[in-house]
Amino acid sequence: MGIHHFFTSLNDLERIIRCPGRFKFEEHNVAAHSWKVSQYAMFFATLEEMNGATVNWKSLYEKTINHDFAEVFIGDIKTPVKHASPELKQMLAHVEEKMMEKFIINEIPEKFQAIFFERMKEGKDATLEGRLLEFADKLDQFYEAFAELKRGNIDQEFVYMYQSALKKLLGIPLEATVDYFRNEILKDAVQEDTHIDIQALTKEILNDTK
Amino acid sequence: MGIHHFFTSLNDLERIIRCPGRFKFEEHNVAAHSWKVSQYAMFFATLEEMNGATVNWKSLYEKTINHDFAEVFIGDIKTPVKHASPELKQMLAHVEEKMMEKFIINEIPEKFQAIFFERMKEGKDATLEGRLLEFADKLDQFYEAFAELKRGNIDQEFVYMYQSALKKLLGIPLEATVDYFRNEILKDAVQEDTHIDIQALTKEILNDTK
Amino acid sequence: MGIHHFFTSLNDLERIIRCPGRFKFEEHNVAAHSWKVSQYAMFFATLEEMNGATVNWKSLYEKTINHDFAEVFIGDIKTPVKHASPELKQMLAHVEEKMMEKFIINEIPEKFQAIFFERMKEGKDATLEGRLLEFADKLDQFYEAFAELKRGNIDQEFVYMYQSALKKLLGIPLEATVDYFRNEILKDAVQEDTHIDIQALTKEILNDTK
Amino acid sequence: MGIHHFFTSLNDLERIIRCPGRFKFEEHNVAAHSWKVSQYAMFFATLEEMNGATVNWKSLYEKTINHDFAEVFIGDIKTPVKHASPELKQMLAHVEEKMMEKFIINEIPEKFQAIFFERMKEGKDATLEGRLLEFADKLDQFYEAFAELKRGNIDQEFVYMYQSALKKLLGIPLEATVDYFRNEILKDAVQEDTHIDIQALTKEILNDTK
Amino acid sequence: MGIHHFFTSLNDLERIIRCPGRFKFEEHNVAAHSWKVSQYAMFFATLEEMNGATVNWKSLYEKTINHDFAEVFIGDIKTPVKHASPELKQMLAHVEEKMMEKFIINEIPEKFQAIFFERMKEGKDATLEGRLLEFADKLDQFYEAFAELKRGNIDQEFVYMYQSALKKLLGIPLEATVDYFRNEILKDAVQEDTHIDIQALTKEILNDTK
Amino acid sequence: MGIHHFFTSLNDLERIIRCPGRFKFEEHNVAAHSWKVSQYAMFFATLEEMNGATVNWKSLYEKTINHDFAEVFIGDIKTPVKHASPELKQMLAHVEEKMMEKFIINEIPEKFQAIFFERMKEGKDATLEGRLLEFADKLDQFYEAFAELKRGNIDQEFVYMYQSALKKLLGIPLEATVDYFRNEILKDAVQEDTHIDIQALTKEILNDTK
Repeated sequence: MGIHHFFTSLNDLERIIRCPGRFKFEEHNVAAHSWKVSQYAMFFATLEEMNGATVNWKSLYEKTINHDFAEVFIGDIKTPVKHASPELKQMLAHVEEKMMEKFIINEIPEKFQAIFFERMKEGKDATLEGRLLEFADKLDQFYEAFAELKRGNIDQEFVYMYQSALKKLLGIPLEATVDYFRNEILKDAVQEDTHIDIQALTKEILNDTK
Repeated sequence: MGIHHFFTSLNDLERIIRCPGRFKFEEHNVAAHSWKVSQYAMFFATLEEMNGATVNWKSLYEKTINHDFAEVFIGDIKTPVKHASPELKQMLAHVEEKMMEKFIINEIPEKFQAIFFERMKEGKDATLEGRLLEFADKLDQFYEAFAELKRGNIDQEFVYMYQSALKKLLGIPLEATVDYFRNEILKDAVQEDTHIDIQALTKEILNDTK
Repeated sequence: MGIHHFFTSLNDLERIIRCPGRFKFEEHNVAAHSWKVSQYAMFFATLEEMNGATVNWKSLYEKTINHDFAEVFIGDIKTPVKHASPELKQMLAHVEEKMMEKFIINEIPEKFQAIFFERMKEGKDATLEGRLLEFADKLDQFYEAFAELKRGNIDQEFVYMYQSALKKLLGIPLEATVDYFRNEILKDAVQEDTHIDIQALTKEILNDTK
Repeated sequence: MGIHHFFTSLNDLERIIRCPGRFKFEEHNVAAHSWKVSQYAMFFATLEEMNGATVNWKSLYEKTINHDFAEVFIGDIKTPVKHASPELKQMLAHVEEKMMEKFIINEIPEKFQAIFFERMKEGKDATLEGRLLEFADKLDQFYEAFAELKRGNIDQEFVYMYQSALKKLLGIPLEATVDYFRNEILKDAVQEDTHIDIQALTKEILNDTK
Repeated sequence: MGIHHFFTSLNDLERIIRCPGRFKFEEHNVAAHSWKVSQYAMFFATLEEMNGATVNWKSLYEKTINHDFAEVFIGDIKTPVKHASPELKQMLAHVEEKMMEKFIINEIPEKFQAIFFERMKEGKDATLEGRLLEFADKLDQFYEAFAELKRGNIDQEFVYMYQSALKKLLGIPLEATVDYFRNEILKDAVQEDTHIDIQALTKEILNDTK
Repeated sequence: MGIHHFFTSLNDLERIIRCPGRFKFEEHNVAAHSWKVSQYAMFFATLEEMNGATVNWKSLYEKTINHDFAEVFIGDIKTPVKHASPELKQMLAHVEEKMMEKFIINEIPEKFQAIFFERMKEGKDATLEGRLLEFADKLDQFYEAFAELKRGNIDQEFVYMYQSALKKLLGIPLEATVDYFRNEILKDAVQEDTHIDIQALTKEILNDTK
């Protein structure tokens, strides 16, 4: 019933924990995750701009801060579930879409509905901004796994999460971004003192993706 | 990889929070919930037995402690999502089933697989034990909402949860159980000193379901 | 030591709790707060645009997500301290500035330093975007106090925080924004069922600021 | 005053933390512990049945879910205290018994009192079900210590707890259960990648108990 | 084995929660409680001194900071258990004493043992300092209950705790202290805005103890 | 408004977390810290007394329990901020002093004001008691860092904190205390089994400070 309700629903995302059910030394909520994604995306957009690209900043802003709003309805479904099968992934995407549609129609005043439909749709498209969102979202998964491995979390799931995020990051079609990540960020990351041997895990992936 | 893996996965349910995303004065995990359900079910099974029913205690034990094990795969999906549409509810049930199947085949030694398939299937069937499970599961939702309302949680969702649980409890075909709940449990419950007027909420439902 | 270090420092803001030392039913971290501020600001910027203003979306994005980054150095100093005296407020601002300067020079690669100096400076200036940041930041304080009062937090500090935030919101020179807040958001807010009488607190302020 | 009070007291066990005062990476409450015990017991009862034993499932169900209910009165007393002397252990058992007696007489309706007295008495007797309870309860202590050691908790108490639990498990007179534990569960457990060298700790005990 | 071990054991008291098992809006650990007790005691000792008493400050310091150290062995046993019977209370006191004796003999270097025996013995004796300790310890219980009632905790236990603490405070033979508490502290306390009607609860006790 | 207000403000220090923003396996609040400091100080004062010094116990008691009360106004400012520059450190000390002055004048009854001004002033002076406070306060930082390193916290900040605390402890002009710390406490500490090699870190400092 109005924007007041939309605003108070943002608070719900502070209570949705990422990767629920797994033992973690530190938990992250979806609101804080969204902010970190908007930070990473801003940095890499700047870098792409410095390399000649034209960034639609409004679009990037919209995409990053809204990309997980739908979790307000459905929570953070465990990634293995989401990817159990392409059919299942599609089913869940469909559910989210329907819940969002219902929310916008019931809660958002008519004059803002078109804007909300536009903003809340899946943002990871083939535009530069869609790719930056995809990169930034995956980067936060990379950093969440990195921090657990660094502190000694021995659960295999974080090894898989680290490697899978790394592989995907290296394959996203954003040349300047991926170069900088590979040559600067990763180089610094693997020099940290860590419990789990992150350097070895990383080299393995780097060799595979050359 | 064997029963060791099954045993360690039980620990995951201590990290799945019920009703994620909502503000609550007290959170409950799925492991503790399962234990409370097995307690309520034992009481009402005893009562039914005193009233002439024959209880299959092994079946009741299996049904109550296993009824939410599948949340280890998918988490505690928000109830409004689960019930957004019958189609969606079915989809999600299907997903859970597939995940469970995969788990049993991959993790459980062959000689126990048939037993696990039997135990992990949906327990809320038309048997006495299936109904007792349904009653006990709903009763925990009733008590979770009751405790929030008593302590003054003003979120409307807990009013709906309380009323919806109450309505369903009164309609489950277990005569001795429902009578006892209506005449003894509820009578004591509404006499408690509470922030939200639980007595009024309860009377409304009782009048509707006479 | 590079952007990797900047990225990992973002995680620190998930551990800085707002309004430390006070009893609250729910705590908020600075990362999640920053995200909510970026959401409010986007909505009101859209509204201003619909009313004829020209929004610099890149600037708004930069201002909102970075406005509390300096807390990574100094934590969330209690507001009464910050405002104990104009001299003290200035001293603390000076400290933050010095810490930020040191951070940028030591950690950020040279080719990004100018950009970081620009982005990390105080964002609440007289531009449209500066005002939108100020409005959005204050609105989150309004909502934090609102939620505590609604749930029955009887600490007087939240009454003062609510009233002081409300007063400031109504005085920010953003015509369309303040009108919408007064006529739509506040109207919905005071109709909620709350423990503390928020309607009375609000009317008092509204009468004073007509 | 009635079953309503009994039901709401179950919630208290969600707030009793096991092994209070010790640093742990993850805490466990008594309600969740009781559920895990009922899971382990069901598995080993099934195994014993497959090996020709006759299981009284009702008794096993009663014993497992009720075995720590008395902690609602007295909390989780630290194990070293409980076992400081046989005299002290007896005193504390006596206290629990008295508190339970008082609770049943004051709170449980007369027609259920005999049943509650039966169910709430010490369950670790010489029956098959009593032994299964003892095994399952000890197994949860084994797994709690295992998880802390695996994650790198360097507190010596968890080494003692692990070794003491292991020793006791291997000595409980349940042939099929102990064989399966030794040959299947333990074999898988020591193959996990762990911070503390659990394999060495385990071998030492296994050699002593051959 | 030595003072290092004694010092690290202090940390354990930060993990012992007072009044375990009860629902509270805010939990308190025994370390923080001990500090608050030492603060209250200092104030009232000052007051007694202003009224002509002679305070042994060293003794008061020793008594207040050490009065709950024994909980490091046994945890915070629920008060109703402690007072279930005089016999039980005595048994538990005996247990604590034995555990403490064992600790001092095993861990404390010989030249400090006599001092530790003196400091760690029950401090609530008939001296001025013993009475100040008793008053200060009870006052913290009063304030813990007060805070829960103020915030709307509707659990009857906190009403009993508040009234029982108040009654005992008013009866402790410390004239200046009790007068100040009755005429200044209580007067301010009951003027606070509270959810539960603390003023009425207080008047009832005050009338009974005139 | 009186001593009641002073007493309830003590509770605020239970919510001020030390070293905010850093990842820690275990957090400590300022109230519990103050208690540990008063324990360490009592031990070393006893030792100094055994070595011929005369201890003013009242002063030591006052200094230890009050030394961080001012954090009730300003929170636990991150140490690197406090020491960013001598000028900044002085500014912050000035702020705390002003806030304390205001608090005493507004809240403490006139007849106690002089006493509070005396007790709440900076306690780390050149007296024996001032030095014992400084030693004890630094020792708690030493133990906080020690515990994190022991459990495997790989954040460099805790290495610096450990080494810096150690260096300062060894340089405080308290002969018997520093000797005992160096020869007994440290010797036991470095023999513990730890994740990070504390022995090496310690030797390095010991060699430098011989």
